[in-house]
Amino acid sequence: LGLGLWRRQAAVAAARGDEEGDRELWQRFMAPPVSGLRELRRRRRELRSRMELLIMETQAEVCRALAALDPGASFAVDSWEREEGGGGISCVLQDGEVFEKAGVNVSVVSGLLSEEAARQMRSRGKALKAKDGKLPFCAMGVSSVIHPKNPHVPTMHFNYRYFEIEEADGTKKWWFGGGTDLTPTYLNEEDAIHFHKTLKEACDKHDLKLYPKYKKWCDDYFYIKHRGERRGIGGIFFDDLDSPSKEEAFQFVKSCAKAVVPCYIPIVKKHCHDSFTPEEKLWQQLRRGRYVEFNLVYDRGTKFGLLTPGSRIESILMSLPLTARWEYMHTPPESSKEAEILEVLRNPKDWVH
Amino acid sequence: LGLGLWRRQAAVAAARGDEEGDRELWQRFMAPPVSGLRELRRRRRELRSRMELLIMETQAEVCRALAALDPGASFAVDSWEREEGGGGISCVLQDGEVFEKAGVNVSVVSGLLSEEAARQMRSRGKALKAKDGKLPFCAMGVSSVIHPKNPHVPTMHFNYRYFEIEEADGTKKWWFGGGTDLTPTYLNEEDAIHFHKTLKEACDKHDLKLYPKYKKWCDDYFYIKHRGERRGIGGIFFDDLDSPSKEEAFQFVKSCAKAVVPCYIPIVKKHCHDSFTPEEKLWQQLRRGRYVEFNLVYDRGTKFGLLTPGSRIESILMSLPLTARWEYMHTPPESSKEAEILEVLRNPKDWVH
Repeated sequence: LGLGLWRRQAAVAAARGDEEGDRELWQRFMAPPVSGLRELRRRRRELRSRMELLIMETQAEVCRALAALDPGASFAVDSWEREEGGGGISCVLQDGEVFEKAGVNVSVVSGLLSEEAARQMRSRGKALKAKDGKLPFCAMGVSSVIHPKNPHVPTMHFNYRYFEIEEADGTKKWWFGGGTDLTPTYLNEEDAIHFHKTLKEACDKHDLKLYPKYKKWCDDYFYIKHRGERRGIGGIFFDDLDSPSKEEAFQFVKSCAKAVVPCYIPIVKKHCHDSFTPEEKLWQQLRRGRYVEFNLVYDRGTKFGLLTPGSRIESILMSLPLTARWEYMHTPPESSKEAEILEVLRNPKDWVH
Repeated sequence: LGLGLWRRQAAVAAARGDEEGDRELWQRFMAPPVSGLRELRRRRRELRSRMELLIMETQAEVCRALAALDPGASFAVDSWEREEGGGGISCVLQDGEVFEKAGVNVSVVSGLLSEEAARQMRSRGKALKAKDGKLPFCAMGVSSVIHPKNPHVPTMHFNYRYFEIEEADGTKKWWFGGGTDLTPTYLNEEDAIHFHKTLKEACDKHDLKLYPKYKKWCDDYFYIKHRGERRGIGGIFFDDLDSPSKEEAFQFVKSCAKAVVPCYIPIVKKHCHDSFTPEEKLWQQLRRGRYVEFNLVYDRGTKFGLLTPGSRIESILMSLPLTARWEYMHTPPESSKEAEILEVLRNPKDWVH
């Protein structure tokens, strides 16, 4: 960290009530945590505190692993506050040698939610009983999209999040959501198998039913309906997770978060120096266009973000690629490598059986 | 027109019941009309027939004017049919010298509409009484987006459309909608004034109240809420137009459609050979990104299209630019030319008083 940044962060930490001795702890992170270490220590047994530390650790782990592969570039770190309560830390590496755009964002926000925004939050749209149309809530998560330059290195997305919401009668609802998924420009079966296998192992430690269920959910969720194709070759996706217990659900989410680096980084290392043609770059740009279509038209997280008053637009739209392309009526020739990946996007495969 | 295309179109026309002698007539158009000339002649006094001829004429006029400015390039003409009823004609010029992507699309569709899709169709979301949740409808329009290469030539969009819908009790509702608006990368006051003035003149012939009302509607409609800025410097926009009479509303729409070429083409001619820097091209690409954000997140026409079963996705998403760019936290320096246009997008100006 540069000295200027260090001083700014020390000031933020001090303002949040952290002590001198805490600095050592938060220097493992990309920036001081939103809730402040003193507060996190005070309520250390509460799940929201443990989750906040987990998302901070995940952010730092992923940023360090990516930065190590792109030594010329570095992450810009922005700590931001939300007027209505909470804030976040956005880390973005842009226009590097290996990565076109890599963003890893943490946010910890709280306040009052409109019923409309609350409905957007839950995938199954369960009704929540609001008092005067407003629900007190707390939401936190780490989310990331990595767009590499080389068309042989796939785009990767992950997001792990936790919600608490209080209904009119004082009942507290909580749930986790998240997932990790891969969007290659070209199909590499070995990579697809490695990616899915690593996620499956993380799931299997908790319950053998989880991977098949969340793999299917992922294929269903990242569906670009108007194109009849998925955004990528999937991974895992889940939402509304509120069983078997808070502790067990948290341990599962932790395993998933810890699997991000091992499922993706080896694939980047393997291909980041592959040679490629201008035609391959063009196909990548067209696929980036589809990525934008999914995120702006269908993605619930993006829609929720754009609806939430005071949300930080730059952090939400960090998921968009640096560049994208739309050609009228582009259709790859039959039996081409471009047609091969399209086939998998139209008919998802089972990668680990 | 190439001979191959001519033969294909002659076959389409024949299939639609047109006679040999009709060819002369439809050769003014880019392709034979969707409803067929025999049918259009049979019901020539009906407004839907006159509107179909108007949108065909407008398409041909605009395509010819654009092609004349980009002599090396030519329009690809696709006639397509919609399984559920109707069809369209898409004309696209891509990667020319002057135009990056220019699309002019006509569609004439009919069938049954779901209540959800019907709600999307009307800006004020008036409820329509459906039988079994379905409403017989007929919708037609011409719509176009022109993205030039040179950052000193603005993007232009126009759309003129007519709807008929039948409610459960047999009542027929009809209305017109449309508009023409300009999206410059850099502000040129002279161009902005010319553009708005030409539209105002077209409106003023019918009612002096129209231009101010539809100018404001345009500024309100093309609002990218999450950015706090408009897509462009506006023009006119209206919807749900069902007064003072069918005939007068049609005459007004006709004046607007006839104003497209004179309001835009002189601006293209004036700037298409202007020199520009790589920085200006980059700013154009970032503004293209905002264009994509508006169209995919907010535009009712696009949403309606993506929801309509059997709609032609390539024709709907023709409006997207060939290339676009998103940079994290891009902010133009104060008093720069980039800041100048942003100021106008945040606080729309009155151009003709």
